[in-house]
Amino acid sequence: MKFEVNANLSYTAQGPSTLILNIQALKTPTQTVLEELLIVDPFVKVEHLSAGQNENRMFRLQVMDKKAFTITYRGIVENSFKETDHTNQIEVPVAQLDTSILPYLYPSRYCQSDKLYRFAHTKFGKIDNPFLKVLALTDWIHSNVEYLSGYTNAQTSAYDTVTELAGVCRDFAHLGIALCRALTIPARYFTGYAYKLDPPDFHACFEALIGNEWVLFDATRLVPLNGIVKIATGMDAAETAVASIFGEAQGNEVRVSCNLQEGEFVPFFYDAAQLKGISYQ
Amino acid sequence: MKFEVNANLSYTAQGPSTLILNIQALKTPTQTVLEELLIVDPFVKVEHLSAGQNENRMFRLQVMDKKAFTITYRGIVENSFKETDHTNQIEVPVAQLDTSILPYLYPSRYCQSDKLYRFAHTKFGKIDNPFLKVLALTDWIHSNVEYLSGYTNAQTSAYDTVTELAGVCRDFAHLGIALCRALTIPARYFTGYAYKLDPPDFHACFEALIGNEWVLFDATRLVPLNGIVKIATGMDAAETAVASIFGEAQGNEVRVSCNLQEGEFVPFFYDAAQLKGISYQ
Amino acid sequence: MKFEVNANLSYTAQGPSTLILNIQALKTPTQTVLEELLIVDPFVKVEHLSAGQNENRMFRLQVMDKKAFTITYRGIVENSFKETDHTNQIEVPVAQLDTSILPYLYPSRYCQSDKLYRFAHTKFGKIDNPFLKVLALTDWIHSNVEYLSGYTNAQTSAYDTVTELAGVCRDFAHLGIALCRALTIPARYFTGYAYKLDPPDFHACFEALIGNEWVLFDATRLVPLNGIVKIATGMDAAETAVASIFGEAQGNEVRVSCNLQEGEFVPFFYDAAQLKGISYQ
Amino acid sequence: MKFEVNANLSYTAQGPSTLILNIQALKTPTQTVLEELLIVDPFVKVEHLSAGQNENRMFRLQVMDKKAFTITYRGIVENSFKETDHTNQIEVPVAQLDTSILPYLYPSRYCQSDKLYRFAHTKFGKIDNPFLKVLALTDWIHSNVEYLSGYTNAQTSAYDTVTELAGVCRDFAHLGIALCRALTIPARYFTGYAYKLDPPDFHACFEALIGNEWVLFDATRLVPLNGIVKIATGMDAAETAVASIFGEAQGNEVRVSCNLQEGEFVPFFYDAAQLKGISYQ
Repeated sequence: MKFEVNANLSYTAQGPSTLILNIQALKTPTQTVLEELLIVDPFVKVEHLSAGQNENRMFRLQVMDKKAFTITYRGIVENSFKETDHTNQIEVPVAQLDTSILPYLYPSRYCQSDKLYRFAHTKFGKIDNPFLKVLALTDWIHSNVEYLSGYTNAQTSAYDTVTELAGVCRDFAHLGIALCRALTIPARYFTGYAYKLDPPDFHACFEALIGNEWVLFDATRLVPLNGIVKIATGMDAAETAVASIFGEAQGNEVRVSCNLQEGEFVPFFYDAAQLKGISYQ
Repeated sequence: MKFEVNANLSYTAQGPSTLILNIQALKTPTQTVLEELLIVDPFVKVEHLSAGQNENRMFRLQVMDKKAFTITYRGIVENSFKETDHTNQIEVPVAQLDTSILPYLYPSRYCQSDKLYRFAHTKFGKIDNPFLKVLALTDWIHSNVEYLSGYTNAQTSAYDTVTELAGVCRDFAHLGIALCRALTIPARYFTGYAYKLDPPDFHACFEALIGNEWVLFDATRLVPLNGIVKIATGMDAAETAVASIFGEAQGNEVRVSCNLQEGEFVPFFYDAAQLKGISYQ
Repeated sequence: MKFEVNANLSYTAQGPSTLILNIQALKTPTQTVLEELLIVDPFVKVEHLSAGQNENRMFRLQVMDKKAFTITYRGIVENSFKETDHTNQIEVPVAQLDTSILPYLYPSRYCQSDKLYRFAHTKFGKIDNPFLKVLALTDWIHSNVEYLSGYTNAQTSAYDTVTELAGVCRDFAHLGIALCRALTIPARYFTGYAYKLDPPDFHACFEALIGNEWVLFDATRLVPLNGIVKIATGMDAAETAVASIFGEAQGNEVRVSCNLQEGEFVPFFYDAAQLKGISYQ
Repeated sequence: MKFEVNANLSYTAQGPSTLILNIQALKTPTQTVLEELLIVDPFVKVEHLSAGQNENRMFRLQVMDKKAFTITYRGIVENSFKETDHTNQIEVPVAQLDTSILPYLYPSRYCQSDKLYRFAHTKFGKIDNPFLKVLALTDWIHSNVEYLSGYTNAQTSAYDTVTELAGVCRDFAHLGIALCRALTIPARYFTGYAYKLDPPDFHACFEALIGNEWVLFDATRLVPLNGIVKIATGMDAAETAVASIFGEAQGNEVRVSCNLQEGEFVPFFYDAAQLKGISYQ
């Protein structure tokens, strides 16, 4: 399918500041950026930080003096995803995981899987099929955590959310990841533009490694899983923040949109009766 | 100098288990492993997980049945370090840091730099020279945190230690790292064999990026900085654990030694009057 | 029934120390202390801190020099409890609670009810009968929290236990109290000698105010509810610690026993099919 | 001196709710309420919860249906305070503290003194004079914690503030109390109307027991210590909240004022060179 994505972020710098942004659509074998435009107004030179396939397309910019500025990104992106039937899926033992995957088993700032070991095993440990296991924990999050803007902040982590039971997409994703890792299922944070997200914003969900595929899960169920334009993946929100600010800048407004340009869209959500998983890779 | 390092770790598996170990001396331009021996007794096949220069030399082993086993590592290592005078050092701005360095600015499981921002800036923010800044925070940790075995556990993080003021080398290192990152100085966890550590054990300290060099700091001051055999570096103890255990194995005993085989050893510690930093790279 | 209770606590003072102990059987309308003996060996004068009916019978002692000492308490206690059928029980609204009860609705050091509000309401909010509500949360704790010595420590609180799901009687009680208070049911910590507790030790459970009676609940289910000799009640373990130590003393060994001297003992546990609650008042 | 105090609180109840309020001026030997007026508009009957001398003058009201309402309190209060010279003050040993004082040594919800033991002793343990000790810790808080509205919330505790170093009067008070208790100095939360507080609001500070007097300390230094009209004291904000809401009411606006009606006002703050302490008892 073909999507048009837009992001418009405005900042005020009170003094010298460096920003690292993660808002460009990723380039992957299944996601092609047909056109894109990145404008900083007033003009500031932007440095693109990585280039390799599947690598997050962060960019960095430095503002030396006090001023307000706006970053605008527009992309036309064509992408597809892989659908896999996980009916007879079995877990990949740690002994067979690729070295590059291992970090996604470790606890991170917002995903303290080490503290959720008993919780995860008590609740989900007996489910054999790893797809069903992650689906079950995603369902648990969906049923127990209330989607509530303003309740959490940038310091909120999975350890808080599992008890306080309220948060936004970021918190839902962190909890999903922490539970997966506690169950020895590699999991990572996923950010993207999401078609039909209302109100429009950047979206966060997570990927779990199932049968050597990074399968997408979204405990918020706010958007269909098949309308996502991938931006970045990482250990958690620390590594894939939309914006990391160093110095004296402050974010003001964020406006985001994601529109379908071509293709027929039939909303797709997971269903425990039919173990089809979606993977954007 | 030339060191002989030994590690002897015994485990009991109650059922199928996978272990990932980080106990082999690193191979770097300044550290050569002259000889080494790795034995699992009774025999279990070991898989080496990475090979690149400067990459942690983890290995993985899988035990399928209930049994006790011992892992023995012995290495003869020749290494040196670089001494740099940081008298006129200035901070590398974020805008000039290499992409590969950026993760070491982010908060991690045990180093919640985001929660220590004010603390770090209030206490150390006014020191300009980055070497002196890290030295000052290392001194603060040394003076305020009591080295106390058994007070902390595997869940203890920098956020605890900064208030509870007791811990072991791991806790000292995590706090050092968290404070550096809060001050926008990249920092990473460092594990090694340490000459003259008493009682002998694996040691943990940290590296801060100063003037594009990873400079070693040790807030415990338990060992001279010039008698270290590097094992691994990473975001924090989650990524560079001596042993990560998946499944039903339990660690029993750990015995470690580090002896000087050749070279003259003059213990070296930092000194605020003479800004010489040590770097093992 | 008639019980003989014994406690034997040994301490070593390294210097001047004051201890406050909570080990004497309470005197209440339904609990009579027939005989009792309190010995500190070598002799130290003991000061009894309160005397009123239903008040905790703490005592205080001061040791001025370095020495080891032992505190021995022996009591012969006759007590009974009230059994109430809560089949048609309704909640007492806050508007009708006595002023003296209100503190038991507030969060305390180990019972952060304010952080468990959503959790408690999501899980137990829909149960109308307050006895059944507290029984349900007690059952949830029993089913989800593993009784595990050595996992928790004196700093562990309900907020930890609700996620980490392991602990001892103290942790089970704190979680029960926190959940009750989150549901606007007054609850307090309860310590006592418990017949048939194995291994013998001081026991902790909790009381919830139901229909103007303090009804006993024990999420550990380690002992029958009808074999308890009450020692103290309070906000949480901070207020009713067996021993609060100020200065340089350290506890060594604790030996406790509780034996039935007279009366027939038919173990009694709660049962959701028969809403009989027990109250020691 | 004579003060006129006013409080105006507006609420919206979405359904049945009970509120407990702590806004009336306390009646003490040194504080006389000459006139007062308490109006709930539209009319709701108010129940006064306690009456004893020195007891907090809470009141309770119950709203059964959906409505907005306003609580207005106006008092004319004449009070004085005691000034004591603490130059040669010594600490009251725990062994001599009255039983009623002991709870103020224990950790509470927002004052986790047990976790601040080392911190308090490392920083302030060597100061002998208890007045100077509390003054020193108050000064430390004042110098290190930034007064910042909106940074903290109702769940923030001393354990957070000691590291995060930002908060409002409530947070300053909790940290002061926690540090005192960690140093075995009884301390309690104190709320009042404060002359010259800008912007006007309820104020919170704390009392420490020094030489058998409850001496007032205020780490915010926002107001002179001699212009306070006492409302309540308690373990921490949990026990002395301006408003505790049960049910579905929400607070809207709070307006407070405190004006001098009679007497000459010479602002008084503590001074380490002159150990005069103020006590409102």
